[in-house]
Amino acid sequence: MWLTLDKQSPLSLNRQISSQIRTFILRGDLPAGHLLPSTRQLGKELDVARSTVLEAYDQLLAEGYLESRSGSGTRVAQGIRPQPRLTGGSAAMLPMAPLIEGCDPPELVNFQSGIPALEQFPAGEWGKLYRQCCESLPASALRYCSPAGVDELREAISGWLLRMRGLRADPGQIMITTGATQGLRLVARLLNRPKALALVEDPVHRGLVEVIARAGYEVKGIAADAQGMDADQLHNLSEDCASRCAFIYVTPSHQYPTGGILSAPRRQTLVNFAHARGCMLVEDDYDGEFRFEGTPVSAMRELAPEKVIYIGSFSKILAPALRIGFAVVPAALIPRWIEEKQFTDVHTDALTQRALASFISSGTLERHIWKMCKLYKRKRQYLLQCLRERFGGCFSASGQAAGLHMVAEFPEIKFTEAMLASMRAHGVRAVPVEHHSLCRDGTHAHQLILGYAHLSEQAMERGVDALHAALRS
Amino acid sequence: MWLTLDKQSPLSLNRQISSQIRTFILRGDLPAGHLLPSTRQLGKELDVARSTVLEAYDQLLAEGYLESRSGSGTRVAQGIRPQPRLTGGSAAMLPMAPLIEGCDPPELVNFQSGIPALEQFPAGEWGKLYRQCCESLPASALRYCSPAGVDELREAISGWLLRMRGLRADPGQIMITTGATQGLRLVARLLNRPKALALVEDPVHRGLVEVIARAGYEVKGIAADAQGMDADQLHNLSEDCASRCAFIYVTPSHQYPTGGILSAPRRQTLVNFAHARGCMLVEDDYDGEFRFEGTPVSAMRELAPEKVIYIGSFSKILAPALRIGFAVVPAALIPRWIEEKQFTDVHTDALTQRALASFISSGTLERHIWKMCKLYKRKRQYLLQCLRERFGGCFSASGQAAGLHMVAEFPEIKFTEAMLASMRAHGVRAVPVEHHSLCRDGTHAHQLILGYAHLSEQAMERGVDALHAALRS
Repeated sequence: MWLTLDKQSPLSLNRQISSQIRTFILRGDLPAGHLLPSTRQLGKELDVARSTVLEAYDQLLAEGYLESRSGSGTRVAQGIRPQPRLTGGSAAMLPMAPLIEGCDPPELVNFQSGIPALEQFPAGEWGKLYRQCCESLPASALRYCSPAGVDELREAISGWLLRMRGLRADPGQIMITTGATQGLRLVARLLNRPKALALVEDPVHRGLVEVIARAGYEVKGIAADAQGMDADQLHNLSEDCASRCAFIYVTPSHQYPTGGILSAPRRQTLVNFAHARGCMLVEDDYDGEFRFEGTPVSAMRELAPEKVIYIGSFSKILAPALRIGFAVVPAALIPRWIEEKQFTDVHTDALTQRALASFISSGTLERHIWKMCKLYKRKRQYLLQCLRERFGGCFSASGQAAGLHMVAEFPEIKFTEAMLASMRAHGVRAVPVEHHSLCRDGTHAHQLILGYAHLSEQAMERGVDALHAALRS
Repeated sequence: MWLTLDKQSPLSLNRQISSQIRTFILRGDLPAGHLLPSTRQLGKELDVARSTVLEAYDQLLAEGYLESRSGSGTRVAQGIRPQPRLTGGSAAMLPMAPLIEGCDPPELVNFQSGIPALEQFPAGEWGKLYRQCCESLPASALRYCSPAGVDELREAISGWLLRMRGLRADPGQIMITTGATQGLRLVARLLNRPKALALVEDPVHRGLVEVIARAGYEVKGIAADAQGMDADQLHNLSEDCASRCAFIYVTPSHQYPTGGILSAPRRQTLVNFAHARGCMLVEDDYDGEFRFEGTPVSAMRELAPEKVIYIGSFSKILAPALRIGFAVVPAALIPRWIEEKQFTDVHTDALTQRALASFISSGTLERHIWKMCKLYKRKRQYLLQCLRERFGGCFSASGQAAGLHMVAEFPEIKFTEAMLASMRAHGVRAVPVEHHSLCRDGTHAHQLILGYAHLSEQAMERGVDALHAALRS
């Protein structure tokens, strides 16, 4: 077992050991039944006291990751389903972070994607509005609310979508969700049928693929390039696949992770396919509010409101901690959506919904978005400048017209596991696009996802320096 | 179509019409394809303008409940799955309220169960604590948190469970959920297997049965009496049923709805069965904090912590609107629980979790519970007194040792649909226990569920008077 211990780390040695073994198990690197080294042996190997290893094993036994029978040693427990393989700190829309907790030294620069500049979150303002809501609340507002959400919020989102995205959605079609992940999960439940197939972009956020797969779907990737999903490939699908397709999941305004914007002809192709084959389109607009250049592109929903479920999130705009998102749902699906949501968690926290409604209608949300847009634009330029200074013409950047991350391609470099380990040793962490690829044919092995929204200029500079040192070595 | 309009209601006539038709459709009373009367005809029947009916139909067309083709009239749309049949205002742990919205005249007394005295909720204090949390928050607390929940809250709940319920649970085993409904849903997902069977008490909360059934289970009822589930009947199960049983769902501290406390021998029988057949026990302690008399009974979890998943909720203690609950999960299940929760909604709102943690650790929660306990005890006594004054020896009350409701049995009276309609006409609404029965053999047709926590003394008195008038007529 390859464990690395950092004796300077604030994390105790036994926590470092248990955390790394847990990660191996969750990633499937240590399969069920696998025999672990004895505590004596591992203690010797790692140059730590045997009792330290014993504590780590005990922790994992208590958590159910390990099993121990007298006389037969300690083994990996049965029944742990490995996570989809997402190496490193890849935690964009759906975070794996809690499962790979705390092994990073504090000075490591993590170009993780999808984390906003959280120190900018107007927490004081938010808390004030929340408190005001509490103080003016009638007792009836403390009862269960509609599974669809609190009306004030649905109306506020409707107005905001029109102002910010030019998207016309009736408040009655806006369904509040406990985060966008739940939105996708509800979609998958609702559209499910025997032998259902879902088509997704390739590369794609792996966590979201797992959400779809867990609802019982077969998931098939359609290659995405700089113009988003290559919709023409839909014509090459077998009749079997085309007829089983329940929905197509796309990120039209900022393809995750490559950053392309879905072109107009491809949008039309998707809509035509959906009409011809009776399937739905799921438009995930996870960070489309942050646009830095180019003409704003409408939401795909505008083309075919009755065929598109639009999924939105406030995780990137406000904070992931809040767990509030929404979907714009075609009228015909609303009764079943409400029913499914009701049996999922009844409804999303109504006080937070009210606070958000007043955050939107007071104009605070839009002020915050504009401010963040300026900030992210500056950060993006700074990161590009650092990259150019260090790498000159040896790299190219793409997907940086919007959102919280860009993709940097280094044609000479292949981001293998060894390379990523070397990068971490130099003090920088980033996820190759290849890790989000379904076919894993190496097409994206030269590309790194660089999330910058949460990083200071100093951190970006240090990160790019470390990357440069690692790639040169 | 039997519609009742109330021209004095603050609800517009077209909303009254659309709401009632929607309810019929959702209950399955109007099946898919059913032809509706023409707007002209219905307008005449109801003595309202044709345009009023037209507006109601348009609303339902827009929502997808109805379909209209030119020349063939307006029909109930295809593909709407009827709700499990829960007549009237039965909305205890899982509310149906939003789906049967607003047809009650304001002066009607609704003995709905499971609604706390929400005007007593310390909203000001809650808002203040929430705001303080926001103001002292490090930016890192705004990121995604662990699917298991915020550590401060898990520790606070652990201490509170020990103080309030004598329940010893390690904070590491406490998993925060987006309400208890989600807790049960996660349990059902986690323990699922081919041909899985779940055993539940009969009568039982029908909404929760639906949650289990939707996870793919066959659900079988075991009769419950004044001592809770009749566990001896487990010995009469066929070998097939016993071997397919994945879990047994019980409400040991206050059987829903009959109110019995599961006796000690029956608890032991359940635990023995779980050990012998390798199934789990799910203990739902939905309102066990409110105890009025008798010796406090431990949680069943104390008997076999490794075989019991304990589900708790703050909906009854604080407010349903908050959507926060928890489960105490055996160590062996934790890795898969965390994984399942992550792909459900990543985690529960972390700011609300922090506010609740400080609400608990400041002692506010316990003060609130004691205050509510005294209040509910008083209300319960008042309701009993009203019933005795009106009905003398013609009724008996049970299940009133705890919780937010009691059961009143009227041996001479059968609560048929006609009787319930007459009760509503007299201005009172209550749900017979029979509506929560799975076998519907009439055993519980003489019993009414009377939720009193949310009612004033005046309202209770008016409700009992109306009940008396209805039963006499």
